[in-house]
Amino acid sequence: MPHSPQDKKRILTRVRRIRGQAEALERALEGGEPCLAILQQIAAVRGAANGLMSEMLEIHLKDELVSGETTAREREQRMADVAHLIRSYLK
Amino acid sequence: MPHSPQDKKRILTRVRRIRGQAEALERALEGGEPCLAILQQIAAVRGAANGLMSEMLEIHLKDELVSGETTAREREQRMADVAHLIRSYLK
Amino acid sequence: MPHSPQDKKRILTRVRRIRGQAEALERALEGGEPCLAILQQIAAVRGAANGLMSEMLEIHLKDELVSGETTAREREQRMADVAHLIRSYLK
Amino acid sequence: MPHSPQDKKRILTRVRRIRGQAEALERALEGGEPCLAILQQIAAVRGAANGLMSEMLEIHLKDELVSGETTAREREQRMADVAHLIRSYLK
Repeated sequence: MPHSPQDKKRILTRVRRIRGQAEALERALEGGEPCLAILQQIAAVRGAANGLMSEMLEIHLKDELVSGETTAREREQRMADVAHLIRSYLK
Repeated sequence: MPHSPQDKKRILTRVRRIRGQAEALERALEGGEPCLAILQQIAAVRGAANGLMSEMLEIHLKDELVSGETTAREREQRMADVAHLIRSYLK
Repeated sequence: MPHSPQDKKRILTRVRRIRGQAEALERALEGGEPCLAILQQIAAVRGAANGLMSEMLEIHLKDELVSGETTAREREQRMADVAHLIRSYLK
Repeated sequence: MPHSPQDKKRILTRVRRIRGQAEALERALEGGEPCLAILQQIAAVRGAANGLMSEMLEIHLKDELVSGETTAREREQRMADVAHLIRSYLK
């Protein structure tokens, strides 16, 4: 979980927006809206998921590598944990 | 909306999965789960949004450009409507 | 190859720009330029590769699905050939 | 530039591969190869650009945030420099 309450709140707001977008998409599909409108809503969900990922990654790097008194060895271990995530989602 | 009922159902299933993932993320954040677990869940949402986008785009191209009797001129018009979407989300 | 000479020229121009960017990157690395400047150049290569992909995909869809007299069956076959490419690079 | 000679060499190898791929693409376009083959080569360039970006980002985070004796304040400044890059290319 993000360490600072403000960061946590920002992430929660983004997650709730994605949930709201998914609910709106369900209604649009059930209501038979045109495909192009649906594609645009899907593109918006995708953009929101990317924004959420990049904000959470930034917060995680800040919390784990930047803040506080840490040794190079501790930071090395934490970097190893996050490196495979960076690799997997920049593909 | 996708023309075939099976396509519509497949898209709805994907949208509902994203909604479920967003709800699980909310609970994980409220429950104070570790950041790394949260990042992995976010990466899964992002993957699901990409999968939804590519499946809906494929269905749209099939419905608009492939199926039925159409003239080159009609297909040209429909292509113009979808081209900017392709461009914007391959960035 | 793109059917129209103008399309082919546009694609070639984009490919040559990427080659030029890669050559500039090699020089920057060999010249010991700062990491941040190198990261920015790499981000530009990545943007150029995405732009090239989306333009070529659009041209391909136009050439294969939109233009000319074709039957739904022919377009179906051509769509099958390109669908896995769309899927693989929207991940 | 990456601090360690091995990292620099790995990045240079990736950059040279992209240059080679761009040169091969030019020849394929000039030789009139089929569109589908060209699209596959372009998808490979795009994959290589993504791989280069994620490896360089990882090296940069390691060099700037992980290694050596640094204060939280120094790391904060360095994080600010790289944060906008992370944001811009996760869109």
